[in-house]
Parts: sequence; structure tokens; C-alpha cells
Amino acid sequence: MGRWVIISSERAKRPDEFLPLAPADNGPQPDCPFCKGNEGKTPPEILVSRPAGTPANGPDWSVRVVPSISPVLRIEGKLEHRAKGLYDVATGIGAHEIIVETPEHVASMAHLPEGQIGQVLDLTIQRIKDLERDPRFKYVLLFKNCGKAAGEGRFTHSRSQLIALPVTPIRLKDKLHGARQYFEFKERCIFCDILRQEMDQRLRVAEETTHFVALAPFASRFPFELWVLPKEHSADFIRMTPEQKLDLSRILKVILSKLSRALKDPPYNTILHTAPFRRARAGYWRTIDQDFHWHLEIMPRLTRVAGFEWGSGFYINPTPPEEAARFLRETTPNG
Amino acid sequence: MGRWVIISSERAKRPDEFLPLAPADNGPQPDCPFCKGNEGKTPPEILVSRPAGTPANGPDWSVRVVPSISPVLRIEGKLEHRAKGLYDVATGIGAHEIIVETPEHVASMAHLPEGQIGQVLDLTIQRIKDLERDPRFKYVLLFKNCGKAAGEGRFTHSRSQLIALPVTPIRLKDKLHGARQYFEFKERCIFCDILRQEMDQRLRVAEETTHFVALAPFASRFPFELWVLPKEHSADFIRMTPEQKLDLSRILKVILSKLSRALKDPPYNTILHTAPFRRARAGYWRTIDQDFHWHLEIMPRLTRVAGFEWGSGFYINPTPPEEAARFLRETTPNG
Repeated sequence: MGRWVIISSERAKRPDEFLPLAPADNGPQPDCPFCKGNEGKTPPEILVSRPAGTPANGPDWSVRVVPSISPVLRIEGKLEHRAKGLYDVATGIGAHEIIVETPEHVASMAHLPEGQIGQVLDLTIQRIKDLERDPRFKYVLLFKNCGKAAGEGRFTHSRSQLIALPVTPIRLKDKLHGARQYFEFKERCIFCDILRQEMDQRLRVAEETTHFVALAPFASRFPFELWVLPKEHSADFIRMTPEQKLDLSRILKVILSKLSRALKDPPYNTILHTAPFRRARAGYWRTIDQDFHWHLEIMPRLTRVAGFEWGSGFYINPTPPEEAARFLRETTPNG
Repeated sequence: MGRWVIISSERAKRPDEFLPLAPADNGPQPDCPFCKGNEGKTPPEILVSRPAGTPANGPDWSVRVVPSISPVLRIEGKLEHRAKGLYDVATGIGAHEIIVETPEHVASMAHLPEGQIGQVLDLTIQRIKDLERDPRFKYVLLFKNCGKAAGEGRFTHSRSQLIALPVTPIRLKDKLHGARQYFEFKERCIFCDILRQEMDQRLRVAEETTHFVALAPFASRFPFELWVLPKEHSADFIRMTPEQKLDLSRILKVILSKLSRALKDPPYNTILHTAPFRRARAGYWRTIDQDFHWHLEIMPRLTRVAGFEWGSGFYINPTPPEEAARFLRETTPNG
């Protein structure tokens, strides 16, 4: 929607030309609060996958969800929104949870077994469904900062984050609005149309499983940026079938392993875009089931965002998405 | 406009708590193409400030504008814009110029004399006026990447960049649109209203000169983000009076020196937001002279943008702008 990306083919870069912005430091960290045995260093677990009968906050777990140690928003309090002179202020209500993806000190989801990724997806969906019941929240943002250049803090332990928000994120609103406009015009989902065209042309498809496609999107902002989309139309990540969930862990394992091998464990962010909570399917949300299509963005952090991008909202990408997709198709995933 | 910023006062950080993301490397660089004596390492100068009678591209200059060595857009060719399946493609027409701000190897505008900054402003305005004459261009983006974390390349020599674009940047469009909506509602410029309120309250004013104010904007996205605005309403940076230009170099010198002292030569970006070219004052641009107000953003790069910011379009700022402004008021600029 009005976003332009400059694919600077004169600067075209193959994966081996990207120097990591900072070398990955994936060694052990004895004081890591997310490792097995250090459960006391985090607040008590909210949700956990552990054998029946083992004590809460003890060491026998495989995936663990805990409140953030340094939350950006707090869950207590009433939602308030008022004017302050020319400006608007709101109380910082929200929830900030950490999904610890493994009891071992592994630095990236790329190195977790497929079954472990499946468990992470399970607990993630359960947490979002639970947060949906709090009427103060409009959206839960699921994301991952892996590696320093992706904004990860001191600890390198593989984890995802959930932030429940009392407002719909502006970036999602833009996406919803664009999808709505397309739907009004064509009476079709724009993401379904993109999927059909891409699966026909096979230029930008990096990976495909029974239920999912990983695409290097046309005019992608960042080198090796990927979108993972369900083939079957659906607005809601949390309404996946059990079979789709298994298949999603499969494609994530393959594509993250390939990125890890091709780009030497690059720093990356993942961001889920799914429909906001809608307690009544009325008003603006009336057609969202039809016009929006959830997807997961995977963004390796290989270039820096600088004045041009900040000032214009446009992006410069030195790797054409067609080359990124072809390269990933030709890469063997790590074992 | 719909953008929320979380000022996390529990994480409140004073300047001395910011570790530089990467230590500044401001030492000499013998192969720097922007240093006096190395003029042959850049394409020939487009505009220069040098004593009458000295040869073009010789060493006797004080400010020099040259085409970029690795342009992101090229000036040759016809503008084309067409559909490609579902997508739009356009030819990458544009100009990319570098304003070399000093013949010596100085790493930041903060360390240039006020008179030198004035010359840089002079040449910048001349270049933008010249690029305005090319009917293919709608906007010239002026920005600066100072320091690695701000996206600067290998060479640390102080410089600004100009990129002429065949489209209006989406980020500017959002700003123009917001200012237009406010004007339609209030029949006043939103920036003038903000200036009045801020100069009354004095909570977020970091510096003031005869014609300019430097503000830490309400709910600023980044710690120590500043906006420099002319007190007198004007949509166009390039229509400054000579007196304003002198005064702008004064406030830039003071505020950049203070940032440099308070934050130990932080990496930073500057971005100019000014009205787009309007060859006919009709249609959408009919009221832009009244509703838009040019300003310069200065953004030290002290925090990393991560999954939350990318996913939501919201920001987390650990330094309340009131504290940033107060701290800068109390800082003595470097000599």
C-alpha cells in the first residue's frame, strides 16, 4: 500500500557477501534465567509443558511461559485514555510474557527439533486464547528477537515474546486496511491471490509443505525476508487445525535451518500478523474473516535501517527476492 | 496519528546509562574519498564552495557536493510505472548526492564550526532548488547517517545525503495527511500549536534561538530524539531567509555539541521533513503552505529497534522526553 522498495540489483548480494553485523555468540551462559535449573530466576510460570506430577517451577519441563523480567507494560490497573493539552495519554496496561522454547541453552529455534517447535506453537496458542478473554486487550503481538542485531538482550536462550495490547497496532491496521480495500474491489483475499500467483510462477517460493508456503515476498524490504502463509484461507493463527500446527512446525524447522546454514546463524526477527480479537463480529470487523489472511514474517537482520528508510518509509534491498528464494531452494537444511 | 509510544519510566535511563551500541571510531582514514587531496576518488563535483580561480576538483574547497559512489537510484532514463501481475514496478529513477561537509576528516557535524555548518546549509539549499527543476522529481530527501549504528558505511567523514525521488515518501505523506486533517478541523497549523504549547510549558524545550526551537517531542520514539522547528510558520526548508539560515547553523551547532558531550559522540540520524515540490499550487497541495511546517528530526541511535517495534509500529522509549530536554538544557556544549 504505497510502499516502495528499491531492489538495487547493481548492489546485488549473495548470501556469502553478508558479513554478520555482529558475530553470533551462542556459547553457554551460566547465569541464564531461562535454563533448566534456574527457574527461580524468573517469576513463576504461567503455563508449562511438563510431565504430570512434577512440581511447578521445578526443572522437569520442555516449554515454559513466564512473565517478562522487565515488562514494557503491566497487567494491573484500569484502562484510561485522556487528553493532556494537545496530546493523548493512556495508562500502560498490557501483558508481557516470555515463551522459553527449550530447557537447554540453545540460541535459535533453527536448532530445536520439530517436535519441540510443535510444543512451542501449542503453548503459544493457549496463551493467546487465554489473553483474548481479558476484555481490555485488543491484540496479542507474538514476536521473536534472535541475536543482538535483532534487539535481543543479554541472554541468548531461544524464546518468543507475547505482548497483549489495549489497542490494535498501527502496522497491523495498515495491513488490515489494505486487505479490506482489495477485498472490496475484487471480492477476493489479496493474500490468496498472491499465493496463487506465486505458486504458479514459482519465482519467489522458498519452501512448500502440505499446508504452508514460505515466500520471499515481491519487493521485500530486507534481504532474505520470508513470509510463511497457510495455503487455506484463514484470518486467525489461533484457529489452526492440529494437522496444520504439525505442518507449521515442519516448515519452520526447514526454513529456519536453511537460513541458519545459508547465512551462518544470522540475527533475525519473526513477527506474527493475525486478526485482532473481535468479541462481536460487527462494524469494522464484519468482513475480516474473509479479507485478512494470517502470516508470519521472518526477517534476517543483514542490513541496517538508516536515514533513508526512516525518512521515507521506503526500503533498499540489495538481494532480489527471486535470488533469495532460489538460493534457499538450493540449500540443504541443517540436520 | 495513531502512533503510540510506551515511555517506560521504570526503565528510565539517564544519558550515562546508555552504552554506545558500538564505540565510535573517529580516527583518520588515509583512503577516505571525502578528504582534501583525495578528490579523484569521487565522481566530479556537482557544486562546490571554493575560492575563485582554484581548479575544479582540486584540493582548495570547504564544502563539496558529489554524486554518490554507490547510488541507490540513477538519474538517467525515463520514468516508467507499470503493473506486473498483481504488483507494481517502476524504473529506479532518482539522484543520489553526497554533501561533503568538511575537507578535514571530522566525524560529526557537532565538531564543525558554526560558519562551516552555514556553508553546508547554503549548498544543500542550492542543490534542492536545482533538483526541483527536474519535472520527474517530487521530493528530495535530506538525511545524515553518522556512526555505524546509524547506518554509516566504511568511511566516517562527516557528510549529508540527498536522494531525489519520483514519488512522495510514504512517511512524509502520513505527516502531511495528519497535518491536513488537523488544519481542516482547527484552521491552524498543528506544528504552530505544538510550538506555542511547548514554549509556554517549557517542559520539553531543549534549546531556543531567535528563530528556532529544539524540542524533545511529546511521546518521542527514541531517547533524546529532537525536532528543530522554525518559530515562524513555513512549509519549505528551501525558502528560509538568510538570517534564519545563520540562526539554524547556530542552533544545530549548540544542540549537536550538547548531544555529543552528553552521550559521548552517539551515532545519530538527521532527517529533514519539508513540503514536496508543487509545480502548480492546486489539488491536494492547495493548502500545504498553511497546514505543513518543516522540521528537522535528530535521532541518536541508543536503543535497537526490534520485533515489537517492527510488528506494531509502536515504540518503547526508556527516557521520558522531559528528562532528555532538561538534561540537555543543563549540558554545556563542547567548544
